[in-house]
Amino acid sequence: MEGVGEEEMEGVDHLAHERNKSEFDVDAMKIVWAGSPHAFDVSDRISKLVASDPGFRKDNRSTLSRKELFKNTLRKAAYAWKTIVDLRLSEEEAAKLRFYVDEPAFTDLHWGMFIPAIKGQGTEEQQQKWLPLAYKMQIIGCYAQTELGHGSNVQGLETTATFDSQTDEFIIHSPTLTSSKWWPGGLGKVATHAIAYARLIVGGREHGVHGFIVQLRSLEDHSPLLGITVGDIGMKFGNGAYNTMDNGVLQFDHVRIPRNQMLMRVSQVTCEGKYKQSDVPRQLVYGTMVYVRQTIVADASCALSRAVCIATRYSAVRRQFGSQNGGPETQVIDYKTQQSRLFPLLASAYAFRFIGEWLKWLYADVTQRLQANDFSTLPEAHACTAGLKSLTTTATAVRWHRRVPKIMWWPWIPLQQWASRIICRLCPCLYIRRRQYRAASTGCKVSHEDCFSAGVQAVQQETSRYNSLYDSSRAFNAMSLRCSKRFIEKLQQEIPGKGVKQQLEVLCNIYALFLLHKHQGDFLSTGCITPKHAALANDELRSLYSQVRPNAIALVDAFNYTDHYLGSILGCYDGNVYPKLYEAAWKDPLNESVVPDGYHLYIRPLLKQEIRTARL
Amino acid sequence: MEGVGEEEMEGVDHLAHERNKSEFDVDAMKIVWAGSPHAFDVSDRISKLVASDPGFRKDNRSTLSRKELFKNTLRKAAYAWKTIVDLRLSEEEAAKLRFYVDEPAFTDLHWGMFIPAIKGQGTEEQQQKWLPLAYKMQIIGCYAQTELGHGSNVQGLETTATFDSQTDEFIIHSPTLTSSKWWPGGLGKVATHAIAYARLIVGGREHGVHGFIVQLRSLEDHSPLLGITVGDIGMKFGNGAYNTMDNGVLQFDHVRIPRNQMLMRVSQVTCEGKYKQSDVPRQLVYGTMVYVRQTIVADASCALSRAVCIATRYSAVRRQFGSQNGGPETQVIDYKTQQSRLFPLLASAYAFRFIGEWLKWLYADVTQRLQANDFSTLPEAHACTAGLKSLTTTATAVRWHRRVPKIMWWPWIPLQQWASRIICRLCPCLYIRRRQYRAASTGCKVSHEDCFSAGVQAVQQETSRYNSLYDSSRAFNAMSLRCSKRFIEKLQQEIPGKGVKQQLEVLCNIYALFLLHKHQGDFLSTGCITPKHAALANDELRSLYSQVRPNAIALVDAFNYTDHYLGSILGCYDGNVYPKLYEAAWKDPLNESVVPDGYHLYIRPLLKQEIRTARL
Repeated sequence: MEGVGEEEMEGVDHLAHERNKSEFDVDAMKIVWAGSPHAFDVSDRISKLVASDPGFRKDNRSTLSRKELFKNTLRKAAYAWKTIVDLRLSEEEAAKLRFYVDEPAFTDLHWGMFIPAIKGQGTEEQQQKWLPLAYKMQIIGCYAQTELGHGSNVQGLETTATFDSQTDEFIIHSPTLTSSKWWPGGLGKVATHAIAYARLIVGGREHGVHGFIVQLRSLEDHSPLLGITVGDIGMKFGNGAYNTMDNGVLQFDHVRIPRNQMLMRVSQVTCEGKYKQSDVPRQLVYGTMVYVRQTIVADASCALSRAVCIATRYSAVRRQFGSQNGGPETQVIDYKTQQSRLFPLLASAYAFRFIGEWLKWLYADVTQRLQANDFSTLPEAHACTAGLKSLTTTATAVRWHRRVPKIMWWPWIPLQQWASRIICRLCPCLYIRRRQYRAASTGCKVSHEDCFSAGVQAVQQETSRYNSLYDSSRAFNAMSLRCSKRFIEKLQQEIPGKGVKQQLEVLCNIYALFLLHKHQGDFLSTGCITPKHAALANDELRSLYSQVRPNAIALVDAFNYTDHYLGSILGCYDGNVYPKLYEAAWKDPLNESVVPDGYHLYIRPLLKQEIRTARL
Repeated sequence: MEGVGEEEMEGVDHLAHERNKSEFDVDAMKIVWAGSPHAFDVSDRISKLVASDPGFRKDNRSTLSRKELFKNTLRKAAYAWKTIVDLRLSEEEAAKLRFYVDEPAFTDLHWGMFIPAIKGQGTEEQQQKWLPLAYKMQIIGCYAQTELGHGSNVQGLETTATFDSQTDEFIIHSPTLTSSKWWPGGLGKVATHAIAYARLIVGGREHGVHGFIVQLRSLEDHSPLLGITVGDIGMKFGNGAYNTMDNGVLQFDHVRIPRNQMLMRVSQVTCEGKYKQSDVPRQLVYGTMVYVRQTIVADASCALSRAVCIATRYSAVRRQFGSQNGGPETQVIDYKTQQSRLFPLLASAYAFRFIGEWLKWLYADVTQRLQANDFSTLPEAHACTAGLKSLTTTATAVRWHRRVPKIMWWPWIPLQQWASRIICRLCPCLYIRRRQYRAASTGCKVSHEDCFSAGVQAVQQETSRYNSLYDSSRAFNAMSLRCSKRFIEKLQQEIPGKGVKQQLEVLCNIYALFLLHKHQGDFLSTGCITPKHAALANDELRSLYSQVRPNAIALVDAFNYTDHYLGSILGCYDGNVYPKLYEAAWKDPLNESVVPDGYHLYIRPLLKQEIRTARL
């Protein structure tokens, strides 16, 4: 590398002056962010383990072809498993390790969908048979629900599972092109087994969609079994994003499986061909969904906080305009316009984190109850997270963006876009559902009206200025204010560390006022605030930005993300962006030779006016 | 391929029933969209030529590694030039050909920045020397302005050009790391010359930033000249997007160029070392910028219309929920929620197209005046397009998304996001500036107040319902309504073809009411409409969607985009999406073998519990 001395690359913290400005105990905030001292310890230890192991490097990903990229992902997944086995990591540690490896792979579906589905929908015997194999990865599973012609509408699935009482088997079949399974991750090239969803047909009668454990590939040579046509669906969004994953296509041609491979916790088919429901309510199926949705929120929270971390650090490094007498230009983070983009997202990142924590608690609570055969809160839990269904598309975008940030990521545009979508969709319904869940679990009823009035109250408390009248269709927006209020209420009782509580309060207020500002059209059109109130709220919001400013870098440091996990030079911890960008550029494969491959064939004929005779 | 008969792939138009519904003359609309019968003819002919030539295929792009991708782009650029030469294409046809080849390449900068800069800022002698070389591609140029530490703030550039009167040369130098040129397209591996911007220093005095023609590479063997360090800055956003372009990094180490390679139309340095300004106003430099901004708007218009075309067609193909008695599910395009996302964007696509056409006229007008040394309207033209400066980031996202749509593109999310950003930023300032430009060119003055009252008038005319009072800071939003009105006014006089005018009127009204809805917070908070008015406008908007619905497919057909240009199976003309998706999947390199490369090394050891001894 030319023009950059060694001393420019190592050891100097270019953001030290920012860190010195902060007014709170960053280490204490790290524990608040992580959820507990224990969670912080695990997260910190495992993230550093991954970051320091060259076997997990990510910086070369974008230059690989699809095949190389995929093969490298297989290697990483095996290497991660080897690490887990060698170091005897706990289940919690292993999950963190997969998280920090930060590369979508078949293992996500195996651990995140296949195993939970068996746990939630399988009988005791089925769990005893399949789970040990899955836990040791003697089989690798995926989750085959979506079809080429059918996404969200599970009831529209076309794959059939017809019971054959002669042989005590189900015949799994894809009757049409559009019934091909399409998208399931891990299906394309890796999974040996699938939970496949299909319409159950017994004795000529249909009984709706059920899940079946179907072996797809030989455990000896990995070749697809008889009647199975399976492959990868190809590239998604260019090379950088989700192309480490083998999203797959699958067709069944009268594939036979034993009767006991239907997931039978909720309903059974007997060997005589009788279909019956168990006492277990059908909503049990929702258990898996609650889990999946919880992970989607957690994903969104990670994606947002990661993006905010990169954007905040780079905004402190980057200077533009405003030079006085030839001095340095102004840090971008000091512009009010930039603060009004960045700080609401910083506040949202914290809010999301706490929503995610609550959902995790919710899932744990539901699981515990399910294990005790207590299904009373399940429908409410499902409803709590069902508002997140619409989040799926957004979360997909988030997941995808999460992979994009490489060296060159200029983060503002997508950042704001996700955030606003996520916030709008996530918060209001969640808050209402959360109250309903609590009400259901304590046996008392909470009506929508109760929620609305609570929302009104929250607005009044937080701003002391709004004279509110709601109509029910618009009051949803107010819920999100209440939602943020809740977190602070909860946090107020137990936050150690100098200044930590104050910072969270500032963020909470920003979050609330930002939402108010964002939805002012609705608030104004329902007459619940006046134009004057809206203007006052806006002034308040801007004054809060000044309070965040000196703490901004420390607030993103509290996420405790390694440079490896962030995967962006613009967001590197020490802020030494320019020398690192410059050095990284030279590593691109195109720079292996000064004169590019193709010069003699395609450039020189142009310059030498020999194009008409060139072989192209 | 299994499961798909030949008859499913060829010849059937699955959207014929949609096309039969349309109530206007699509061929006439195609001409309106193209701008003129001549423009339509050129566009239609060249787009089909590109689409039918296997030398220009794009469908394999996403599976290539960076090096392969780049080499293939070099080949395409050479092949395009060969086609242009062989077929003796006119300048207009050649530009269209490059457009429909639809792959970012060094040629974009050569034709789009290097040549216009010389035309705009070079003296007659300079133009006579350099333009013939550039037109024949005996030299290949790029535009090196942005530096690692300095983007928008041109006055902050650090590169220096110091005049040496002893040798009658300039010494171009990069004094710091952050002064490295960074991002210029075509610079990385291809360009032989650059227009480099640097601070001019003559006799120890600084005279601001000027442009210089600097040779970068040998015309004999393409090696960088003495003192030039040049390379590619590496991957941008994964593989699919802009990685066909060799965005570059460049450092000058006291590179000497003859004095006559400073672009001297505006200011000169004499051989005695005297710096002088010509009569030509300094704003001449803006000429290039006006051109560049015009192309950015055109790009945004193409990106939006392409995305809308794909989304509209796929919304007509895709069915989800709403099945009655086991019949087919409902077409997604029939859901009001989908219409409220899609149709405002369809309307915006048309609006953008007309804005783009106007800007093209503006540039032509400015250029003509400049050639006659009439600089009177230049400042206004610059101002007209300066509002677009903020669009640059958006347009970058647009450019980028423009490349993303491959087979797998599920288009809703990004679509809406660009559109709203583009519309918000583009229209209000444009409208005001346009009036000012007209005023300036006719010698009369138009104040901002005039514009505001015109905006008020437009709102009143269009809705006949709004009782408006503006305060100046918010009235910007109203401008966009007026903006759309203008187009229709102009179009009303000369639109042949059954139903064409009516369709454009519906789109125009949707565009206006959508903007009103989008900014209702501002309108309400300034008291210029009441909540009741807002609700009425919304009802009106929804009723207009019903009028668009039967014409939606025909309205996107009128863009006359080939399947090659769209580059998305979801948007294919015949709507035969599922068989095509299914077939395309099998072409992914991962499907070359049933058992993936890496199975023996990385999957089998997992399944066989041999991970601890595996070599990873």
